[in-house]
Amino acid sequence: MFELKRQEGHRRWGTLTTAHGKIETPFFMPIATKGAVKTLSSADMRELRAQILLSNTYHLLLRPGLEEMKRLGGLHKLMGWDGPILTDSGGYQVFSLSGAKLSARGGSAFGGNKTSEDGVEFQSHIDGARLKLTPELSMEMQSAIGSDIMMQFDDVAAGDSSYERYEEAMERSLRWAKRCKEGKTGQSKLFGIVQGGTYEDLRERSASGLVDIGFDGYAIGGLSVGESREDAYRIVKNLAPSLPGDKPRYFMGGGMPEEIVYYVHQGVDMFDCVLPTRNARHGTLFVWSEDPNLISWDENKADFYSKLHITNETHAFDSSPVDAFCDCMTCKTTSRAYLRHLFSVGEMLALRLATIHNLSFYLRLMLELRK
Amino acid sequence: MFELKRQEGHRRWGTLTTAHGKIETPFFMPIATKGAVKTLSSADMRELRAQILLSNTYHLLLRPGLEEMKRLGGLHKLMGWDGPILTDSGGYQVFSLSGAKLSARGGSAFGGNKTSEDGVEFQSHIDGARLKLTPELSMEMQSAIGSDIMMQFDDVAAGDSSYERYEEAMERSLRWAKRCKEGKTGQSKLFGIVQGGTYEDLRERSASGLVDIGFDGYAIGGLSVGESREDAYRIVKNLAPSLPGDKPRYFMGGGMPEEIVYYVHQGVDMFDCVLPTRNARHGTLFVWSEDPNLISWDENKADFYSKLHITNETHAFDSSPVDAFCDCMTCKTTSRAYLRHLFSVGEMLALRLATIHNLSFYLRLMLELRK
Repeated sequence: MFELKRQEGHRRWGTLTTAHGKIETPFFMPIATKGAVKTLSSADMRELRAQILLSNTYHLLLRPGLEEMKRLGGLHKLMGWDGPILTDSGGYQVFSLSGAKLSARGGSAFGGNKTSEDGVEFQSHIDGARLKLTPELSMEMQSAIGSDIMMQFDDVAAGDSSYERYEEAMERSLRWAKRCKEGKTGQSKLFGIVQGGTYEDLRERSASGLVDIGFDGYAIGGLSVGESREDAYRIVKNLAPSLPGDKPRYFMGGGMPEEIVYYVHQGVDMFDCVLPTRNARHGTLFVWSEDPNLISWDENKADFYSKLHITNETHAFDSSPVDAFCDCMTCKTTSRAYLRHLFSVGEMLALRLATIHNLSFYLRLMLELRK
Repeated sequence: MFELKRQEGHRRWGTLTTAHGKIETPFFMPIATKGAVKTLSSADMRELRAQILLSNTYHLLLRPGLEEMKRLGGLHKLMGWDGPILTDSGGYQVFSLSGAKLSARGGSAFGGNKTSEDGVEFQSHIDGARLKLTPELSMEMQSAIGSDIMMQFDDVAAGDSSYERYEEAMERSLRWAKRCKEGKTGQSKLFGIVQGGTYEDLRERSASGLVDIGFDGYAIGGLSVGESREDAYRIVKNLAPSLPGDKPRYFMGGGMPEEIVYYVHQGVDMFDCVLPTRNARHGTLFVWSEDPNLISWDENKADFYSKLHITNETHAFDSSPVDAFCDCMTCKTTSRAYLRHLFSVGEMLALRLATIHNLSFYLRLMLELRK
C-alpha cells in the first residue's frame, strides 16, 4: 500500500508499506547485487538506517541458483536482513552483462543474447553456461528470493538502438509485463517498467499499456544508459507526473545527487544507483557544501555538495574528517589523512570506510528531501 | 613495567604496563602491518577487545615515510587507536620482502639486500627504490610511529643458512641491539631479539649477550620460518625458561593454536601471527571443539579446535553459525551458508567476517589461557 501524505507541485511525500515494514518516500535503495552491499554487512546497513535494499535476480539466479535459494529460505534469511528488499528482474543484466562479456570475447556485440517472444537466451558471465530467462522464471526466482517489491522482466534495448528496436522492445516488455503479473504468486508487490528510450511517444504508449494491466508501482527504465542528461530530464519531466498518482514511481539506476533532487521535484519516489558505492571504491567521496539541515531544495540545485578525491596529496596530513556535516561511522572515527593512507597502501578497509560515507551521504540526502 | 602475578611450572600470568595502558599476559597481538588489521578498523579491534596491535616499521617507512609519520603525529593518532602498539623493527621484512621480490624478478635470491655492519641496503618492494635501514633509522622510525614496545633491528639469516651464517647474524644482531638501545629516545620499551636458528649454543650466547645489554623484554626471533615444529619446540623449551623471569618473553611470528598453548607452558607471554587473518581470507576458520570455558589446558593439547573450510559444499545450506561457542559479531549475525555464499560470489565482506571470527578465536584462546 502506498499512502500519499503531502504534495507540493509534483514533489510528494508518502509511505510505502511492504511485508517487511514501512518505507518513507522518497527513498534511495543501496544495492546488494549478490546478497551484500559491497564491503558492508546487514548490520552495517541497519546502522546506516537504510530503509530497503535492492538485490538482483540475474546474479542470484547464477549463484546460489533458483532451487538453492528456495532451499535457503530466501534472501532475508540468508542475509540476516529483516527490512524490505526490492529485486531487479534480470532484464537489464542479461542485456548488459552476458552481452558485454561475449562482446569482449570477440563475439558480435550482444550476440550472446537471443531474444525471442518467450524470453532471453544468454550465456552466464561466470562460466559461459547457456541459460534462458523468461518472465515466468524471473517471477519464480524473485519469489524464491522473497522479494518485497518485484520488478517485471523487460526487454532492454541498447542505448543507441533505432526507433524501431525501441518500439519492439517496449511492446515486448508490455507483453512480458502481463505474463509477469499472471505468473506472480504471493503477496509481493509487482512494478511495471516504462520503456521507450528517449522517445516520448513510445514512453506514453508504454506507460498507458502498463497502467491498463495495473501494477503496484511504475518504474522508469532504460535511462542512465548513456543518454544526455537533458534527454533524461525531458523524459522524466514529462513522464513522471503522468504516472498514476496513487502508486510509487521509481527511477531506475540513477543518479548523481542533483539528478535525484531534480527527479524528486518531478514526483519520483524511489531511486537506486551504483554511484555512491562504486565512486567510494575509487576514492571519490561526496561531501556536503553546507549543513544539509539548512538546505532549501529546488529542482535545479546542484551546489549543495562537491566530490572529494581522497587519494589526492592535499589530504595527506589533513586530520579533519571526510565531511564535517556527516555523522557516519567513517566521519566520526577516521581522518582524511588516515583514509588516504589506507587507499595508498591498498587496505580493503579503505573501500569499506568510503562506502559507508557515500551511502550515508545518499541516505541523508533522501532524509533531507523527505523533510 | 612487567608484574608477574602467578606462576605454575614455567607457565605464568602477569601484567605489562605501557604508555597506552596495561596488558594482561599471556596475550596475542593482531597484526596491523600497514596501519590497519587487514579488512578491519580500529573500532573493530576495540570491539574484539584486542589489548594491543602490532605494526611494522618497514612498511610504514615506505608509506607514509619517516618525515610524513612525524608530521602525522604517530600511528595512534593516524589510526584512531589509543591502546598499546608494538612495532617490528623491519629486520625481518628487509630480509623477506625486498629479497623475495628481487628473487622473483630473476635476480639471485636475496641479492637485493646488502648487509654491512652499518645496516641493510635493500630495494623497496613497491617501487624498487634503493634504501638503507640501520639500527638507528629503525629506532627513529619506531619513535616516529610512537611505538609503545619497540623491537631491536636485527640481522635475519635465511632458514637454510649455515652455522657460520647463523653465528654471524646472531653476533651482528647483538651489536645492533646495543646500538638500538643507545639510539632509543623517549619512554618506550625496547625488546632484544634472541637469534641463532635451531642451534642451542648460538641461542644461549645470543640470550646471554642481550641480557648483558639489558632490555625491557626478550623475543625469540628466527623461528616460524620453515623449521620443523620439533626444532622450534626444542629451542623454545630450552630457551624461554632461561630468559629473565622478571621480563616479558615474546615468541615472534607463531603459531597454530596448539603451538601457542605449548609455548605458554614454556613461559612465553606474547605472540603475534598472520595465521588467523591470512587463513580467514582463504576461507579457513578456527572452530572450538568444545566450550572453551571448560578446557583444561596442558602443553600437548591440540584437539580443542578444528579448521573449517567454509567454501566446502557441505556448508551451502547450513544455517548454523561458524562456531557455536563463539560470541563474535560474525557468529552472532552470519550463518555458514551466508558466509559460504559471500566467498563463492567474491564479496569482500566475506574476508572481513572471516577475519573477525578468526581473531576472536585467537583472542579468546589467550583469554582462556589467562584464566
